[in-house]
Amino acid sequence: MLRIGFDVGGTNIAAGLVNDMLDIVQQKSVPFPIGKGAEYAASVLADIVRELLGAQGAGLEELSCIGVAVPGSIDRHGEVVIDAYNLQFHNVPLRAEVQKHFPEVPVFLANDANAAALAELHKGAFVGCKTAVLITLGTGVGGGLILGGKMFNGGNGSGVELGHMVLSHGGELCTCGLHGCVESYCTATRIVREGRKAVVEYVNSMIYTSARGDMDNVSAKLVIDCAKAGDRVALDIFERYVDALGSAVTSIVNLLDPEVIALGGGVSLAGDFLFKPLLENVSKKIFFPTCGRIVPAQMGNDAGIIGAAMLKVNAE
Amino acid sequence: MLRIGFDVGGTNIAAGLVNDMLDIVQQKSVPFPIGKGAEYAASVLADIVRELLGAQGAGLEELSCIGVAVPGSIDRHGEVVIDAYNLQFHNVPLRAEVQKHFPEVPVFLANDANAAALAELHKGAFVGCKTAVLITLGTGVGGGLILGGKMFNGGNGSGVELGHMVLSHGGELCTCGLHGCVESYCTATRIVREGRKAVVEYVNSMIYTSARGDMDNVSAKLVIDCAKAGDRVALDIFERYVDALGSAVTSIVNLLDPEVIALGGGVSLAGDFLFKPLLENVSKKIFFPTCGRIVPAQMGNDAGIIGAAMLKVNAE
Repeated sequence: MLRIGFDVGGTNIAAGLVNDMLDIVQQKSVPFPIGKGAEYAASVLADIVRELLGAQGAGLEELSCIGVAVPGSIDRHGEVVIDAYNLQFHNVPLRAEVQKHFPEVPVFLANDANAAALAELHKGAFVGCKTAVLITLGTGVGGGLILGGKMFNGGNGSGVELGHMVLSHGGELCTCGLHGCVESYCTATRIVREGRKAVVEYVNSMIYTSARGDMDNVSAKLVIDCAKAGDRVALDIFERYVDALGSAVTSIVNLLDPEVIALGGGVSLAGDFLFKPLLENVSKKIFFPTCGRIVPAQMGNDAGIIGAAMLKVNAE
Repeated sequence: MLRIGFDVGGTNIAAGLVNDMLDIVQQKSVPFPIGKGAEYAASVLADIVRELLGAQGAGLEELSCIGVAVPGSIDRHGEVVIDAYNLQFHNVPLRAEVQKHFPEVPVFLANDANAAALAELHKGAFVGCKTAVLITLGTGVGGGLILGGKMFNGGNGSGVELGHMVLSHGGELCTCGLHGCVESYCTATRIVREGRKAVVEYVNSMIYTSARGDMDNVSAKLVIDCAKAGDRVALDIFERYVDALGSAVTSIVNLLDPEVIALGGGVSLAGDFLFKPLLENVSKKIFFPTCGRIVPAQMGNDAGIIGAAMLKVNAE
C-alpha cells in the first residue's frame, strides 16, 4: 500500500508518496497559499494527492492514508489546527477539510515536530525505541517525544514544548516572553547573537575578519567554522553553547532516561565538533552512571513527509 | 486475593497486607536490620509475611504477590538493588532473596518514589490518568512518573531523578556535586537554610523570635508558619521558593503536559498557602494556555506499601 505525507510550512507545502519500505517514490513541492484559508489549502493538498497518485500510475484504492504535518499546535483529537502562525491558521478544522476530498481514505493531522520524531522512530535514529527524544536546534528549539513506542503529544494533548523547559530560572528573556527557557540559550540564533557581539567587541577576531565586520554576514555556521579553525573568541561562544545544551539534555536524561536523544536542525550539522564535547558535558552532569545514545537525527528534510505518512500506523 | 507491600527504609521496614479495595487490613513495622545484608533482611521480610497472613487468618494461597519498595536504584529487570545507601545495599539481588522464601508467590521490587507514584495511580491523585507526575518536597526532591498508565522507571531502566533536572544552569551547588539542580532550590532543606540566614541577618524578624535565635529551632514549618503570619522576611523566602518550584513544574508541564502533578513531602503540607501561589506562578510561565491539575499527593505514609502491593498489576 501507499501513503501520502504532507509537510506543510509557511513557505512551501512538501508532499511525498511513500511506499511500504518508507521510501518517497514521488514528491512535489508547491508554495503555501498564505491567507487563502483552510478550505483552499485543503483543495491544494487534494490536487497534489491526485497528481502524486497519477504520476505513480496508482489509484485511490492503493492509498492507505493521508497525513498532514503542520508547524503549530493541534487539538488532542488531531482534528483542529489551534494555532499555526506561519500558516495564519487559528482554530481551523484542517483534517475534516482534507477528508471531504477523499471520504474513503483515512486522514491524519499532527504537529510537524511530533511527526519528525515519528519519522525517526520508523526509519531513522529511533528504530526499535520505546523512549526517545528529538531536539531540533534551529532558529528556535523544538522537538518531539516517543514514549511507549508511540508519538507523544502531551498528557492533555497540548503538545511538547521542550524548548520552553526552564534552563536558567530567572535567566535571559525568551521569545515567548518568559525568562530562562532552553530556547533562550540553545538556538542557532543564540550563536549568531553572540557572534555579532564578538564582531563589536573583538575587531581582531576571526569572526570579525570572516564576516568582514558586517553583522549580516555572521551566521551560526560562520561562528562554528571559526571555532573549528581554533579562533578563541568563537571557541568561547561555542563552548558556552555546548555547556548550556548539555544542561538541557541533562534535564531530559534525568527525567526520562531516553534510549536515544537525536539532535537535528542547523546546529547539529556541526557533527562531531558538537557531539563529542556535548557527550562529555552530559556525561559529567547526568545523575545516572550512563545514559542512552546522543546522535544526529537522520531524517533531515524528509522528516515531516515520512512522519506524516506514518500517522495512521501510530494511531493503530 | 491479598497482596503484601513493603516500604523498606533505612530506619524501619513498614509492611501492609492489602485487600482488593486497596485497604491495608494488617500492618507491621520493625527496625531495618542495618549492616546485616540482604539475605538476613529477606528473612525478616519473610517472617513479616507469615505474621501478617497469620493475623488475618489467611494462607499463602490467598496471597497474589509480594512487593518491595526500597529507597535506591533498581536494575531495569527489577531484580537487583544497585545502590541504596541508607540500607547499605549495593548490587544486591533482593528480589531473588525474598523469592527463595516463597517460591510460589510472585515477588516484585521497585524504587520507593516510583512505587509512591503507582500508589497514587491506583488509589490516590492519579486514578484514571495516563500521564502524571509525583514530586516529593522533603530533605531532597524526588518523584515518580506515570506514563501510558504505567509506572515508568526510565527508558533504559535507570530510574527517574526529577530532582536533578537543571533548574538554573550554572547555579547553586547541589548535594549531587553538580550545579543548579531542582534539588538545590526546591527542598525543605532550602527553606531551612534560608531561614537560618534570616536568623543571622534579621534579628528583629519573626523567624528570629520564633526560633529564639537558635538555629536548631529553624524548621521549614517554622519559616512557613512565620510567612503565613505575615512576616516579611519569611514571606520573601517562601515567595522565592514558590517561584523556583514554579519554574521546575513549568519544565515538566512544557515537556510532558501531565494530566495531574501531585506534590508530596513535608513542604506540601503547607496546603493552599503553597498551592494557590504555585498555580498562579505556573499559569504565568507555561507555554500552553492551560495545564493539568496541580494537587496534593493523597497517599501519605501508605504510598510505599500500597505502591509495592500494586507492582504485580503494573507488570501485567
